[in-house]
Amino acid sequence: MSTRRPLLAVATLCVALLACAQSSAQVGTAPQPAASATTTAQATYRPEFGTMWTFDAPPIDYWRRTYNFAPDQRWLDKVRLASVRLPNCSASFVSSRGLVMTNHHCARACIESTSPSDSNYIETGFAAKAITEEKKCAGLYVDQLQSIENVTSRVRSAITGATPAEQAAQRAEVFNRLQTECSQQTRLTCQVVTLYHGGMYSLYRYRRFNDLRLVMAPEGEVAFFGGDPDNFTYPRYDLDVTLLRVYENDRPYAPQEYLRWSRNGAADGEVIFIVGNPGSTGRLNTVAQMEFLRDVSYPANLAGYHRFLDIYAELAKRDTSAARRYQNEIFGYENSLKAVTGYRTGLLDTAQMAMKREFEREFRARIAADPRLRAEYGGAWDAIAAAQRELATFNPQLRYQGFAGGSNLLTLAAQLVRVASESSKPDAERLTAYRGPALNSVRAAVTRNVPIDTAFERLALAAQLRAARSELPANDPFLRVALANGTPESVAAALVRGTRVGDSAFRASLLNGGAAAVAASNDPMIVLARQIDPINRTVAARAAALNAIIAANAEKIGQAMFAAYGTALPPDATFTLRISDGVVKGFPMNGTIAPYKTTFFGLYARSASFDNKPPFRIPPRWAERRTRLDLATPFNFVSTNDLIGGNSGSPLINRNAEVVGLAFDSNIEGVANRFVFTTDVARAVSVHSRGITEALRKVYDANSVADELEGR
Amino acid sequence: MSTRRPLLAVATLCVALLACAQSSAQVGTAPQPAASATTTAQATYRPEFGTMWTFDAPPIDYWRRTYNFAPDQRWLDKVRLASVRLPNCSASFVSSRGLVMTNHHCARACIESTSPSDSNYIETGFAAKAITEEKKCAGLYVDQLQSIENVTSRVRSAITGATPAEQAAQRAEVFNRLQTECSQQTRLTCQVVTLYHGGMYSLYRYRRFNDLRLVMAPEGEVAFFGGDPDNFTYPRYDLDVTLLRVYENDRPYAPQEYLRWSRNGAADGEVIFIVGNPGSTGRLNTVAQMEFLRDVSYPANLAGYHRFLDIYAELAKRDTSAARRYQNEIFGYENSLKAVTGYRTGLLDTAQMAMKREFEREFRARIAADPRLRAEYGGAWDAIAAAQRELATFNPQLRYQGFAGGSNLLTLAAQLVRVASESSKPDAERLTAYRGPALNSVRAAVTRNVPIDTAFERLALAAQLRAARSELPANDPFLRVALANGTPESVAAALVRGTRVGDSAFRASLLNGGAAAVAASNDPMIVLARQIDPINRTVAARAAALNAIIAANAEKIGQAMFAAYGTALPPDATFTLRISDGVVKGFPMNGTIAPYKTTFFGLYARSASFDNKPPFRIPPRWAERRTRLDLATPFNFVSTNDLIGGNSGSPLINRNAEVVGLAFDSNIEGVANRFVFTTDVARAVSVHSRGITEALRKVYDANSVADELEGR
Repeated sequence: MSTRRPLLAVATLCVALLACAQSSAQVGTAPQPAASATTTAQATYRPEFGTMWTFDAPPIDYWRRTYNFAPDQRWLDKVRLASVRLPNCSASFVSSRGLVMTNHHCARACIESTSPSDSNYIETGFAAKAITEEKKCAGLYVDQLQSIENVTSRVRSAITGATPAEQAAQRAEVFNRLQTECSQQTRLTCQVVTLYHGGMYSLYRYRRFNDLRLVMAPEGEVAFFGGDPDNFTYPRYDLDVTLLRVYENDRPYAPQEYLRWSRNGAADGEVIFIVGNPGSTGRLNTVAQMEFLRDVSYPANLAGYHRFLDIYAELAKRDTSAARRYQNEIFGYENSLKAVTGYRTGLLDTAQMAMKREFEREFRARIAADPRLRAEYGGAWDAIAAAQRELATFNPQLRYQGFAGGSNLLTLAAQLVRVASESSKPDAERLTAYRGPALNSVRAAVTRNVPIDTAFERLALAAQLRAARSELPANDPFLRVALANGTPESVAAALVRGTRVGDSAFRASLLNGGAAAVAASNDPMIVLARQIDPINRTVAARAAALNAIIAANAEKIGQAMFAAYGTALPPDATFTLRISDGVVKGFPMNGTIAPYKTTFFGLYARSASFDNKPPFRIPPRWAERRTRLDLATPFNFVSTNDLIGGNSGSPLINRNAEVVGLAFDSNIEGVANRFVFTTDVARAVSVHSRGITEALRKVYDANSVADELEGR
Repeated sequence: MSTRRPLLAVATLCVALLACAQSSAQVGTAPQPAASATTTAQATYRPEFGTMWTFDAPPIDYWRRTYNFAPDQRWLDKVRLASVRLPNCSASFVSSRGLVMTNHHCARACIESTSPSDSNYIETGFAAKAITEEKKCAGLYVDQLQSIENVTSRVRSAITGATPAEQAAQRAEVFNRLQTECSQQTRLTCQVVTLYHGGMYSLYRYRRFNDLRLVMAPEGEVAFFGGDPDNFTYPRYDLDVTLLRVYENDRPYAPQEYLRWSRNGAADGEVIFIVGNPGSTGRLNTVAQMEFLRDVSYPANLAGYHRFLDIYAELAKRDTSAARRYQNEIFGYENSLKAVTGYRTGLLDTAQMAMKREFEREFRARIAADPRLRAEYGGAWDAIAAAQRELATFNPQLRYQGFAGGSNLLTLAAQLVRVASESSKPDAERLTAYRGPALNSVRAAVTRNVPIDTAFERLALAAQLRAARSELPANDPFLRVALANGTPESVAAALVRGTRVGDSAFRASLLNGGAAAVAASNDPMIVLARQIDPINRTVAARAAALNAIIAANAEKIGQAMFAAYGTALPPDATFTLRISDGVVKGFPMNGTIAPYKTTFFGLYARSASFDNKPPFRIPPRWAERRTRLDLATPFNFVSTNDLIGGNSGSPLINRNAEVVGLAFDSNIEGVANRFVFTTDVARAVSVHSRGITEALRKVYDANSVADELEGR
């Protein structure tokens, strides 16, 4: 979770449930030489670090001890090859003819884009009546992990610089070299992955499949039944599934490996595995990093979400269509609100934090006991704590002396000003986001035609300025510039009224005019952006320097941990393929017990309890076909597997590598697992495999697809 | 909630949900002259005191303001007369032919006792096929409130004594005189009720109906579906209803007033009223009293429940039939555990306690500002706080220097010792529990033949002694006596092995032998009881003196409050008839929304989620007849009405005084309302009227009863 919103915040919210992979986590930051990589004899598994295991270090002994299960390499290879990664989700091959199963919320763009002009498959659902009716999803691809190679020593040997900046450049270069070399040799998609914050580097090689077609998607109402209220909760009743098919040369692709369908699906108490790509966790973070998130960063994030939600509520009051128009944004912020509140709940949990503190105390004592380790790593924790403390002193400046978190017009103006000045520098001297091909992406984004809602802009800019005024000291340079001519409300109204930045042609003309045009512009929003730009650069540079210290020292700690524990502890999530063990199990909830599974009875029950009103409405086809269904069929279920955003669409498999379910969420208690993994009440939430086939047969008349899954 | 368990704890647990009325609350403690009873101009309703209004002071203006509803006296009289009270529950007349509706858990004794020898209606359910088949419930009665008279001045004028003891005797005497005089004049059942801890005394006159017959009771499995786990929770799926009929002269009684049945039942957002007899609340308690419960009393109670549950778990491990044999006790302790944990949750809630503190601060400031009030009442809070502090210093002694909370054999032995010594004193000098006719009840109880499980006795006595040892200082006189000859385990084993107290003939012979026989006995348990008796008397007397100070000062505060607020605030619950307003409304729960109602779909859903295993099993008749039911029929629902133990069986009525539901529980959040009333998440849980008639018609083939309810 970044401490700042992206500069270009125009409608780039993450609206999916677990799809919010933070793929930035997969590229590492400035590495440092590690201590000896041999694991010590004491290295044993610690449950609070979770169970997101990599495929090159499966914990066979731990599985044998815990479940009396020790899969062989063939089992592991099969499962790895049957698993695929979508751009922001997980998926799997589930038939011999290339069927790919993922979540509905991972395939929304495909479902929308393949809809005919007069209807929307998100509303109506879609089931191809024949293979010829399957619809190509433009731009969608899946990656299949072919192999993993430990490249730690190659990365390390390339990093010889003395300063963090030199090291960062060398690291980027060796990553690039390794990736390019790999792609040229293998024609695969290659990526260097930073594990253990730099304790280990691995080269992941993927085969990419570019032709995916839509086979079946249920109605959005049943895929996301319960909407925002039920999001991140359980008991749950969501058919959050979409079936795609991989084609090659215009024919269904026959994968070398795929997952068979379990006849019974997940059973209470059964050991099962989630195979997918968790996006980002913070379990190796230090206590100081966690406290910063808990006390500084997350509270400010939450206030920001509330600020936006208040704006949408105000718009909806004035104009009843606004709630509908902004439903994606509203859902996005509600989703973030729930997620970040959940992350923070874990950090506020005294038992979880005590566990973390105790681990840190023990681990630091171990480092301190060895003179060599102490010299290399002993200072890392205090260095991070000092940097976090300093960051906390100017967090309001970092948040509010800028352009983001409110008006899109101001953000666009700021972007025009910065593109102009950065473009005039040599590539190597530019801010990272403006180097090389990235510059063209920024230029394209800034001139793209986007609708501007001036009512929203006025409210958002005023709210942004009000927040700045309440968080910053009165003599702050940003406030002096931004509020020189009035109140937040009057300034916002005048700027939105007076600017032409909303016009994409105007933006293009400024962009083409370069630094001179921008400097000469008397558009009031551009004028303001020019004044803010140096203030923002100063504070951002100050934060960047401190974050570099944190990153460098976090790497040291990661290296020390890897040196001490090796792969006995799984690395933090990196949106790469992991396998997590767990058990199907209910949990204590609301004074009683949440059952391990729900059924179709429950879907109709929850809908009836809300008088069939949205977001609890049953789609018409489901109302009509209710009596066909065996209502006691398992629908959703929970298990103790470890998962997080990015795992959406992961298959759940049994010991026979058969599909027993499809992960799509965690319960509200599970959201708190981001930093410390627990299984007392935290659960993964999945669609049951039997619910999928029952719906295919009885609701969607898709017997042929169900037969294909079941291998009939 | 008393700070001690009753002396005779043999299977006297409260096993019902809301039926656990603490009827002791209805007889007041030593009254004091009150300040002027005129209410001040500033007296306004404060929501944290709840909405349990008496029928002689209905808050018409508040209702008009809040709901635009101002019932006339006729409405109030009708509702009052249609309501009746069971010995520990509430009920109502719901047909012109004397049908009475209450909860299944209020009528368990009747349902069991009317069962034929070869089956049990608790298991099978019962529905009379014709009026001639209705089964008389031996010993059951209902009381109908005829009138209320304010007798405050008559009570006050009779209390002239100087000491609390004199005052207590005078109060008991005037209560008795008023009650006897009333009964003789009216032939009604009369009771003086202490309201506002002594701020007001009211004479309640009841007509008693002694002939009640069982008309219909569902299977226990559907009445108490979800069992202990779902107890005190919502969403819920319980047909917790029983229909009885009042007979007079062997004919169905035609009540002068009864509640009509609403065609639609409770609707979302509707204003509704619960009419019934809440048992006990502590909303007028001082902060010091609440803190004592939170920090001293409740934690010790909870430890005691856990001690018993551990014993039953140990017995069940040794003997698989034990769990079944002790299921009532286990359920009783689980129930108490949930309830007391809930009460304590309210006291641990910083927002609720802040509200309480703020009220107390304001109110004390008001008293302090008036010299006359300050002189009379100003010292009451500090006096209570001091007494509570002193009680806290010897709470372990009060709990463990005695006989209760463990072995039934020890309790019986102690009772034999105490009956012998108390019997030999003049009546007026005995402990209260041994005066007048009470002595005969104690004598009868002590000689009654009760089964003794020696395995339980050994474990319970050992646990009791272990707890005493861990809570009391090493030189404690009780420990010196009780553990003189060994460890808790060896002492318990020897005592249980050596005693004959388990034999009722032995107990009778000792009882008949009087003090001499008890003194001469060398039965080891009697010997121990004789040694403990004086220790226990000392500590109990010390506590009684402090509790008398608390009671006297609590009365002063009650009087001051009544003087200041009059009936603008409802009095604490006293197991007398109240009417509470509220609204049908869901609530935020578990990260999402709990719906305002559940349906029959939900019953089958929850059962299927647990694979139809107890306590989530659907009775066979309900499984067979599922397809007959309209599964979307409302089943249970929640509302913001104020209720507590004793309210079980209360009707919920709409503005037209029609039945829309039947109260049977509160949600887990509502349990915390005992001391501070809130409606953000606390809810009353009720059976929906439409669920009742749907089940009568479709499951129980009881169309004639359903027609009678619906007035067809």
